[in-house]
Amino acid sequence: MKKIIIIGGGAAGAKAAAKAKRLEPKDHIELYTRTNEIAYSLCGLPYFIEGSVDDINKLIVRTPEQFIENGIEVFLNHEAQEIYPDRNSILINGNQIFYDELILALGAHVQLPNIENISADNIFTLRSLKSGVDIKKITKESKRVLIIGAGYIAIELIEAFIKNGLEVVVVEKNDRVLSDFDDDFSFAIQDIILNKCENKIELVLDDYITRFNVDENNKFKSASTKEGKEIFADFCVLATGAKPNVELAKNAGITLGPTGAIKVDNKMRTNIPNIYACGDCAEKYCIITRQPTYIGLGTIANKEGRVAAINAVNDESFENFDGVLKSTITRFFDYTISKTGLSMQEAMIYQDKINLEPVYSTVTKNDKAGYMPNVQKLTIKLVADKRSGELLGAQALGSVDNIAQRINTVTSALQSRLTVEELLHLDLAYAPPFSSSIDPILTAAYKLKELINK
Amino acid sequence: MKKIIIIGGGAAGAKAAAKAKRLEPKDHIELYTRTNEIAYSLCGLPYFIEGSVDDINKLIVRTPEQFIENGIEVFLNHEAQEIYPDRNSILINGNQIFYDELILALGAHVQLPNIENISADNIFTLRSLKSGVDIKKITKESKRVLIIGAGYIAIELIEAFIKNGLEVVVVEKNDRVLSDFDDDFSFAIQDIILNKCENKIELVLDDYITRFNVDENNKFKSASTKEGKEIFADFCVLATGAKPNVELAKNAGITLGPTGAIKVDNKMRTNIPNIYACGDCAEKYCIITRQPTYIGLGTIANKEGRVAAINAVNDESFENFDGVLKSTITRFFDYTISKTGLSMQEAMIYQDKINLEPVYSTVTKNDKAGYMPNVQKLTIKLVADKRSGELLGAQALGSVDNIAQRINTVTSALQSRLTVEELLHLDLAYAPPFSSSIDPILTAAYKLKELINK
Repeated sequence: MKKIIIIGGGAAGAKAAAKAKRLEPKDHIELYTRTNEIAYSLCGLPYFIEGSVDDINKLIVRTPEQFIENGIEVFLNHEAQEIYPDRNSILINGNQIFYDELILALGAHVQLPNIENISADNIFTLRSLKSGVDIKKITKESKRVLIIGAGYIAIELIEAFIKNGLEVVVVEKNDRVLSDFDDDFSFAIQDIILNKCENKIELVLDDYITRFNVDENNKFKSASTKEGKEIFADFCVLATGAKPNVELAKNAGITLGPTGAIKVDNKMRTNIPNIYACGDCAEKYCIITRQPTYIGLGTIANKEGRVAAINAVNDESFENFDGVLKSTITRFFDYTISKTGLSMQEAMIYQDKINLEPVYSTVTKNDKAGYMPNVQKLTIKLVADKRSGELLGAQALGSVDNIAQRINTVTSALQSRLTVEELLHLDLAYAPPFSSSIDPILTAAYKLKELINK
Repeated sequence: MKKIIIIGGGAAGAKAAAKAKRLEPKDHIELYTRTNEIAYSLCGLPYFIEGSVDDINKLIVRTPEQFIENGIEVFLNHEAQEIYPDRNSILINGNQIFYDELILALGAHVQLPNIENISADNIFTLRSLKSGVDIKKITKESKRVLIIGAGYIAIELIEAFIKNGLEVVVVEKNDRVLSDFDDDFSFAIQDIILNKCENKIELVLDDYITRFNVDENNKFKSASTKEGKEIFADFCVLATGAKPNVELAKNAGITLGPTGAIKVDNKMRTNIPNIYACGDCAEKYCIITRQPTYIGLGTIANKEGRVAAINAVNDESFENFDGVLKSTITRFFDYTISKTGLSMQEAMIYQDKINLEPVYSTVTKNDKAGYMPNVQKLTIKLVADKRSGELLGAQALGSVDNIAQRINTVTSALQSRLTVEELLHLDLAYAPPFSSSIDPILTAAYKLKELINK
């Protein structure tokens, strides 16, 4: 019988606890979380603010009571303060607790710019149920919101706020939204944003906030930008990206990787025996570049939590987690934008380091047989390495229905390290309501193959 | 400069002609077709009959004029009568024509049961634009139709006829519809059919037609079944499956495979030099079982036509076509049913022959995060080999949106010969509107892995 302690109750921690208990019911599993929130869906918060999810409690995947029913001890509002690896113990709320295995699922926080008055009452981050409730409340009382950042969460929040009748100003330091995408996709989604939100949106790009201006009650009133703008709003949301929570680990001598997240091997082990890390606090390994990378995503946290638990329960396990593609997708009104693997721009960055010669093809094509009703367009861009012929990544933009699962056809191919040649022989299921007889993915692959053969 | 003769103007022949011309504009390409129809979408016919495609001409992918513009000579209403391999020539409409390379894209015909009066005027098959127009015309004048067979085309025709206000009787010799699927899926789709069509449909299973009864004008009036039923209807459609057109090839000494289709290698070569076969007349190779198999599908015809052309143009080409998964999908009202690779029942058939121990898992799960609006269920069944851990196939049933592209995530994995272990690590793109955070495919993979490890 082992005692397994898990720090953190997000997707990774919750999964690790459930999996460990299921694998070895006799093991003693304790789950500690800093707040009173546990096992909830972060990704659902924008839809709660939007209003399509009417009750914040629906975002709770598993309640403390459900954990307890499964034999997992849950400690809410318990802050892990220090790890003593030599003694196999950890200080939590002033008490030293011993462990056989320690799983760190510390999560991430919003990367805060170092700006005066950033702690004003009506400047929010979106990382908890409470923050969702607070933002929802102020949304109802407000006319205008400032969003800092223009990544996925920002895009989802724009829709949420616009649907609630607000005016939205977005300030983004890059020259475009969704800068993980190639700029042709960023610009396309920008056009969609401007088109969908009409005169209710202002995109301030290539600029950043230098000062938040507050009133005597520490209430945010406006923000000044590097380029000299002053932007007034009733409240502000910082959607400036996630940073791993690593202080606890770092102080205990646990090695961080080059991305600043906790370095782990493919069994989710840190450099210190019996200590695992998983989820948003842990560094990722990119299957394509074979380099360390970072992304905070619930789906990955889930997989890592599972693998950490399997290995914590059984040191001899063969369960590995071999890395990520950083696949992402989001809905914006009736559009969907998605990505898997590398963009062309990302591939260019890696070309010397890992000896790539990136090429791409972009195809805009009907999503159904051209003669069917309600035909819509979709755009797919594939990136590959001219030298090896291997696929490196894909980006797709289209309607809610026609892109949603299509990106994952490429994800599967990419994770299998298919070449473009192999990709274009995929025996994809086809019927006129679902695709053109040569699927847009295959058309893009044909185009790309011609470039590779040149 | 070569002279390449292509017999047949369906998906394979049309693609082969276009590809050959594109690869080598100096080559002389002649395309012969038996009727006046060329390069049209067979798959679109049910939607024309239904009425969602309003003009039969919309189903024409490329007109004879467009072929000619591209420098391809097109001969409509030309019947290929005999091939003389020793002389590299072929007899067409009584004229002997020489070739350097001959590509046979002979297509398939509907497998006709040997029943009296089957040639009655109002008994149809659906294999041409003309047949589509004829069926559409009689649909408008009729109240009741008899469909023989219950495969994909039959399912699509049921919807088309019901939407046109007809009563439909289906007679199927198997004990269930869509018998390529496992029976749990067949039964589920049967329930959907009965539910959607209410009292307008009668499914007569496990029975077959023994006689068509005609009036003095050779007009079909009713059909008698083995079980002693007499089914009256205004017309009848035979949807009894496709049989490859092989007579021309067989008479010339071209080898047929065990499925009765023309045997080809992975360059689409027949046993006779300079003669290729592709599309519905050619035998397929199943990537999973590594055995010959047969299916007539436009998507496969397209890929094979391309590969045949590349190899006909250039004998030294490295272009191979490595086989099929027999992936299929169809819409039935607001449902979608799809399949890739082997069903459990098919895997059982092969278990001794190729040393499999098939196991499966079935998951019914939300198609979105549970808290999102309009959550619907979908069902996925995965089949794998317990010995190797390799995935063998998948079947999926759900709504139009949530299944459509999802099956192809598995198709990609299957064609890459992933194990279930590898499948469950797929970094699938996720957002609450599109999936649960653990995609149903992954949930099914987790369940399956537990069975494999047992």
